[in-house]
Amino acid sequence: MQKGIIKPKRTPTLISTYSVVGKKEHDGPLGELFDEYCEDDKFGKDSWEKAESEMQLRAMKGAMSKAKISDDGVDILLAGDLLNQCVGSNYGLEKFDISYLGLYGACSTCAEGLGIAACFYGGEIFDTCGVVTSSHYCASERQFRFPIEYGGQRAPTAQWTVTGSGAFIVGAGGKIKIPEVLFGKTKDMGITDINNMGAAMAPAAIDTIERYFKESTHSPEDFDLIITGDLGFEGSEILKDLLLKDGIDIRKNHVDCGLMIFERKKQDTHAGGSGCGCSASVLSADIIKNLEDKTLSDVLFIGTGALMSPMTLFQGGSIPSVAHLVRLSSK
Amino acid sequence: MQKGIIKPKRTPTLISTYSVVGKKEHDGPLGELFDEYCEDDKFGKDSWEKAESEMQLRAMKGAMSKAKISDDGVDILLAGDLLNQCVGSNYGLEKFDISYLGLYGACSTCAEGLGIAACFYGGEIFDTCGVVTSSHYCASERQFRFPIEYGGQRAPTAQWTVTGSGAFIVGAGGKIKIPEVLFGKTKDMGITDINNMGAAMAPAAIDTIERYFKESTHSPEDFDLIITGDLGFEGSEILKDLLLKDGIDIRKNHVDCGLMIFERKKQDTHAGGSGCGCSASVLSADIIKNLEDKTLSDVLFIGTGALMSPMTLFQGGSIPSVAHLVRLSSK
Repeated sequence: MQKGIIKPKRTPTLISTYSVVGKKEHDGPLGELFDEYCEDDKFGKDSWEKAESEMQLRAMKGAMSKAKISDDGVDILLAGDLLNQCVGSNYGLEKFDISYLGLYGACSTCAEGLGIAACFYGGEIFDTCGVVTSSHYCASERQFRFPIEYGGQRAPTAQWTVTGSGAFIVGAGGKIKIPEVLFGKTKDMGITDINNMGAAMAPAAIDTIERYFKESTHSPEDFDLIITGDLGFEGSEILKDLLLKDGIDIRKNHVDCGLMIFERKKQDTHAGGSGCGCSASVLSADIIKNLEDKTLSDVLFIGTGALMSPMTLFQGGSIPSVAHLVRLSSK
Repeated sequence: MQKGIIKPKRTPTLISTYSVVGKKEHDGPLGELFDEYCEDDKFGKDSWEKAESEMQLRAMKGAMSKAKISDDGVDILLAGDLLNQCVGSNYGLEKFDISYLGLYGACSTCAEGLGIAACFYGGEIFDTCGVVTSSHYCASERQFRFPIEYGGQRAPTAQWTVTGSGAFIVGAGGKIKIPEVLFGKTKDMGITDINNMGAAMAPAAIDTIERYFKESTHSPEDFDLIITGDLGFEGSEILKDLLLKDGIDIRKNHVDCGLMIFERKKQDTHAGGSGCGCSASVLSADIIKNLEDKTLSDVLFIGTGALMSPMTLFQGGSIPSVAHLVRLSSK
């Protein structure tokens, strides 16, 4: 019989977190909440890819500094990003003298990393785990769509890859608990539009949320917020509509990191933000702080990821997606 | 204080394994040992990438079939490959109704997956974990170097990406135990030659092996074999030489999956095999069977991965690498 919701015996907590973002993200509604930002999005580097690695390095260093620990105080780093072969993480974290596990869950990687870290701590495998993910608008655009210099027209359903990184230290003694984790199953509803990731990812989020409420004794109103990673406008509407048809009403307490990070119309980001750095930086800068100061007490975070590459779409493939759930509680 | 060697309290075992390879691999010294192979390397598909996904699907189905379990008997799938955004795994496994965690550790991914599965089982997070990785020569060549139709000259130090996949079920009741796991740290010694991955990966293997023998009470002769993932000829020589200088002599019992899978001179594979499917298929077809029939009783498997992309090398970056250690014992 397959295991579903994991309730770690030793309850993991979030010890610290740190966020690093680009200028556009700093200009958005959460601007002042991020720990660090860069005016030109280059972070002192000569390529977008190197800038992304630098964000991961700064984010993890920042989280470790806040937790007052150095390399020998972290047992393992769990990291990932959107770049081919996850080089944002590989190069960003090579300076640490800490064991390293690379992850790939597209935009769900932050939730994947937090979930695995919670399991590692809960199972007494490790005592302190670092989790960090990132994305960079310019690096992503040229890899997945067109270089930004091309000036391609963006579709209304397209999302704007966030330039940002968020790092987390999971272990003992923090204010916020991770009492439950539910890893997602891959869902593919046949969406082939690279400019509508929200529609591709919504079915995975629906599956995970439905599995959670079916297996747990909770209902949506038990949570202050049900936060999806980055479904954006299109995906969020689909999520709420389809869940409602199945009798689960999350309209009152659903928010989406992709809709929180930008004023999407004013900032011309169409359907909202996306990328491995989107949910990581929003969670770090906003949600975690609100849990720490008890403005929020119990939230479900569902990271969503579209598991495709340009190559698979050129070959006519549709877009499989996955969504991992992590419960964060300050109760 | 950082944790090193993990000794899971509940000792995980390998319940079953299954390997799928291409024609060249079947023509090699281990040919008859693989569970399945395909004459044209396409596995009934119309692209190399789809063929790779098909290999993962067949390998995992095969391992589940041998273990006599279906989807609801597997708690989690841990998988990865070399393709951009790990699409070999994402598309290969989407048909399973099982939670899915994507990994990226380049050619070390098989060891990474087995290590995480051992931790999940050991920490009583999950009871049954599926691990599967793959690589495909034609898909890899066109992504990392040149399309094979180009007919590019191969350097003597170049390795030949294995067309293959290996799947493993980790849980209770198998003959082979996983008593220890040691996750690797990223090492970058400044190698920039995309045609000499062995040299880039050897330092990571050295670091992990040295950490293992420093922390454990064991010495190399305690093991029947010390198996590296795919350092190939160049990397294996570097590994043995440098370890010897540090007082660790593994010359008598070292083997390398990349050197086992091909008769490298006769089959014109230069420095030997590589790829996420190399160590996975060799482990599955050869090492595990020898452990099961007690020809081997205790081995250290060190999966090695080069964590670069063509983009990072075009930008002048060197090649960071990582090596994860998994001990396999039938004692």
